[in-house]
Amino acid sequence: MGVFPEQRVSVITVGVRDLAGMIRFYTDVLGFEDRGVKGEVAFFNAGGMVIGLWDETKLAADAGVADDRKGAFKGFALAFNARSTDEVDEIFSRLGRAGAQISKPPHKTYWGGYSGYFTDPEGNAWEVAHNPFWPIDEAGRVAVPLAKEQ
Amino acid sequence: MGVFPEQRVSVITVGVRDLAGMIRFYTDVLGFEDRGVKGEVAFFNAGGMVIGLWDETKLAADAGVADDRKGAFKGFALAFNARSTDEVDEIFSRLGRAGAQISKPPHKTYWGGYSGYFTDPEGNAWEVAHNPFWPIDEAGRVAVPLAKEQ
Repeated sequence: MGVFPEQRVSVITVGVRDLAGMIRFYTDVLGFEDRGVKGEVAFFNAGGMVIGLWDETKLAADAGVADDRKGAFKGFALAFNARSTDEVDEIFSRLGRAGAQISKPPHKTYWGGYSGYFTDPEGNAWEVAHNPFWPIDEAGRVAVPLAKEQ
Repeated sequence: MGVFPEQRVSVITVGVRDLAGMIRFYTDVLGFEDRGVKGEVAFFNAGGMVIGLWDETKLAADAGVADDRKGAFKGFALAFNARSTDEVDEIFSRLGRAGAQISKPPHKTYWGGYSGYFTDPEGNAWEVAHNPFWPIDEAGRVAVPLAKEQ
């Protein structure tokens, strides 16, 4: 057994510079409901796990790590797996109408899926993908099959 | 309705510099099972969502964003919500035995929980927390109650 008693992740907390602006994007554009402490931190339910938005300097201090990485791309990406290619297109249409930055329009990918990327106001990368090899259950839970099952 | 038809996140992909070393940590230490394409990318089932490890430069290129942020802390944190303070302590004992870097030992937090942090080999922050205000169901899914319900 590894360190964790169950193989799961509960929260992804994104360090932000403009908390109010980031909360507006995640609520008004992406449609998440803010359940955090207003003005301090935002928490969004995200299908059994949680997305948090919190001041980047406070997050670094809380985590006991140095906040020494400057620039836009933080070296991670979030993804929303859609149920069809049509759903991917619909999401990008909505993103376009919402004025979101689309860094890569949806396209057929080399791995057999269909995907595009947008960035949130601070350059964090979000992929919206249809992956025909990864089943999504009714509740929206995605599961990666074993490579040999693909 | 926001951009997404369902309020969830499917994948967090962490950009990495030493893929093999990072996969060893996530499999041998954390206990995730690698379901990705060996040597190319790692995917770990994580309770209805997925953690991915992928070369940071390729991730940036794939996302269509500039890879211009240098340093250790990437401005985000993952969290594992444990079911008790004892479970938090047990996890940190295992982390210690595994030689993981503990950036903040477990302690009572200002928000009424119990939490500590460790970092993976590239400085990405993982929190292990017991949050008595966030229920966890049998399947390990965490849900944030409305602030007024807390």
